[in-house]
Amino acid sequence: MNNIISLDKVSGILVCEAGCILENLDSFLLNEGFIMPLDLGAKGSCQIGGNVSTNAGGLRYVRYGSLHGSILGLEVVQANGTVLDMLGTIRKDSTGYDLKQLFIGSEGSLGIITKVSILTPPRLSSTNLAFLACKDFFSCQKLLSESKRKLGEVLSAFEFLDNQSMDMVLTYLDGVRNPLPPSVHNFYVLIETTGSNETHDKEKLEAFLLHSMESGLISDGVVAQDINQASSFWRIREGITEALMKAGAVYKYDLSLPVEKMYNLVEKMRIRLGQRAKVLGYGHLGDANLHLNISTPEYDDTVLAQIEPFVYEWTSSHRGSISAEHGLGLMKANKIHYSKSPETVELMISIKKLLDPNRILNPYKVLPHSLVQE
Amino acid sequence: MNNIISLDKVSGILVCEAGCILENLDSFLLNEGFIMPLDLGAKGSCQIGGNVSTNAGGLRYVRYGSLHGSILGLEVVQANGTVLDMLGTIRKDSTGYDLKQLFIGSEGSLGIITKVSILTPPRLSSTNLAFLACKDFFSCQKLLSESKRKLGEVLSAFEFLDNQSMDMVLTYLDGVRNPLPPSVHNFYVLIETTGSNETHDKEKLEAFLLHSMESGLISDGVVAQDINQASSFWRIREGITEALMKAGAVYKYDLSLPVEKMYNLVEKMRIRLGQRAKVLGYGHLGDANLHLNISTPEYDDTVLAQIEPFVYEWTSSHRGSISAEHGLGLMKANKIHYSKSPETVELMISIKKLLDPNRILNPYKVLPHSLVQE
Repeated sequence: MNNIISLDKVSGILVCEAGCILENLDSFLLNEGFIMPLDLGAKGSCQIGGNVSTNAGGLRYVRYGSLHGSILGLEVVQANGTVLDMLGTIRKDSTGYDLKQLFIGSEGSLGIITKVSILTPPRLSSTNLAFLACKDFFSCQKLLSESKRKLGEVLSAFEFLDNQSMDMVLTYLDGVRNPLPPSVHNFYVLIETTGSNETHDKEKLEAFLLHSMESGLISDGVVAQDINQASSFWRIREGITEALMKAGAVYKYDLSLPVEKMYNLVEKMRIRLGQRAKVLGYGHLGDANLHLNISTPEYDDTVLAQIEPFVYEWTSSHRGSISAEHGLGLMKANKIHYSKSPETVELMISIKKLLDPNRILNPYKVLPHSLVQE
Repeated sequence: MNNIISLDKVSGILVCEAGCILENLDSFLLNEGFIMPLDLGAKGSCQIGGNVSTNAGGLRYVRYGSLHGSILGLEVVQANGTVLDMLGTIRKDSTGYDLKQLFIGSEGSLGIITKVSILTPPRLSSTNLAFLACKDFFSCQKLLSESKRKLGEVLSAFEFLDNQSMDMVLTYLDGVRNPLPPSVHNFYVLIETTGSNETHDKEKLEAFLLHSMESGLISDGVVAQDINQASSFWRIREGITEALMKAGAVYKYDLSLPVEKMYNLVEKMRIRLGQRAKVLGYGHLGDANLHLNISTPEYDDTVLAQIEPFVYEWTSSHRGSISAEHGLGLMKANKIHYSKSPETVELMISIKKLLDPNRILNPYKVLPHSLVQE
């Protein structure tokens, strides 16, 4: 189940089996002049079928968008054993209902994805990465707005981490250093550009950084001079979860919120927990996706009681999503009502019963089990 | 039903009622620094609710992709009167099934869309348009491949028309002239770029055109010097349907096919019909979407018998779509099997019965009526 079936070199449409490792697909495409439209920290082990089933997001989302847009076709095995051939290899198709969409992000609970057809963007020749410091979260937001206009079409990633996340990485990961010493800054932003002309891209990025420095939006910054330095910048952002695992217990929340309210939740959580925990905020700012991670020496139910249900209630009251890119799985199946209306959940249950009447596909996941069983 | 509800000026997320006219939304956004991710010839009269229901494509598709990617939320009234609030205003959400996708492109047959939340891209400052001539369809394809790499991130439209389409426009529309006289070329291509830096964009486009001229991919070409000239170029491409209506009867097919096989169908149709009809090929080459239009002085069943079912059979045998961006409606409901497998159609029927058991929503459309009624 890990074979590449075809690549259309004019359109960039890749067809492969669901067991292909994301990084292997990216390496294959690189030689052919294309890239995968998604990139995750777990790329070395995750499989494309799982990426599609969980509607994975990741670092390239701000540029290439959702899998609901880039997946062109799927082959799915239904609960009754029927194979659904929806493996289209064309960009546009308006014949009947777009059923493949139901299987994107449904975590295997409606059918098992066995083959994937995906639109892959052309590989562009020039990539630049800047590591920047901002004094407050408002400056990060403002920087995002400005970058969408000034960097426009070349912006390919806009990530942020707070000072607490930086501390965690510096403390627990070997060989990592802060590219912007010796000052301590409150927030760090990574801006990546990808384009077809090195000179143009560098000019755009430099003009943007100069302007942002002059206007006070950024307090310091450095542009990676080579691929090794770029990797060392990414290591900081991508190493946060590894550092957290080394630090002890961790409570993880993957939330989507309106940008301007996003960091308020981190600050509120810090006040709630005081000295009992380290509260980290980082994530895909370009997509308004916050990773709120709470680190304690060991798991502690009284800490958990301070976090939940508060974190879900607060997110729900701001019309956010309690799972931006990681699905609901087992642990959050009963929490779906924080993000979805009762009528919507009811229709989900009806569809689950229609496609999997005997409840054999990934049981107890995604939807509240009590409702599915009724 | 034509009110704008909100616009988040950091993220570009627009929420509006379904009756808003597409062009009005685009004008509203223009002042706020954003644009709609879709643009159609019918923009002055079509409504966003209809655009979403029919999964409309159009001119910006090559850049901003499908509505399945850019629609963030919907409010839908179900057949039983229940209002489904799926009006999310966040980019990422992986809580349960993405039910709104079912209503995108289902032509009102599963529910009525009443409100729309959509991600709108930032308005970029620089737009350029080139009108080019190619000697054959292979050169058009090659030009597309090259433009995806060399123009990469600034490419915003790649349209083509054949010589027969140009003739039709020149004959039937007042005040339209061929920008590339006096030679007669076989194919014409419009390439639009949109970016954040006028100087960079012009440099990219000029270098690309020079290279394409030298390598013989294009035989002639002109870049619009101002907005009036750009409009006159677009008038040719967008005026084809109007010219066809003035010419007499027209048989229209909106097909999606692998790029390299796309124009073969036009040539085969010309041979089948001989002197009895004019056969035009044009469309969104960047998305492999062919508009095959056949013009006769008046409607003639013997001509139709030469066209159908051949056109559907040929498309089906090349795994194409018999409706790329116009839906199935009433006329093509019974033709769904040319593009979808029996198992997939069966599941569509089950979903139709689940959501609309009394068959009151847009009856006779999309799916074969005999199957829905069973």
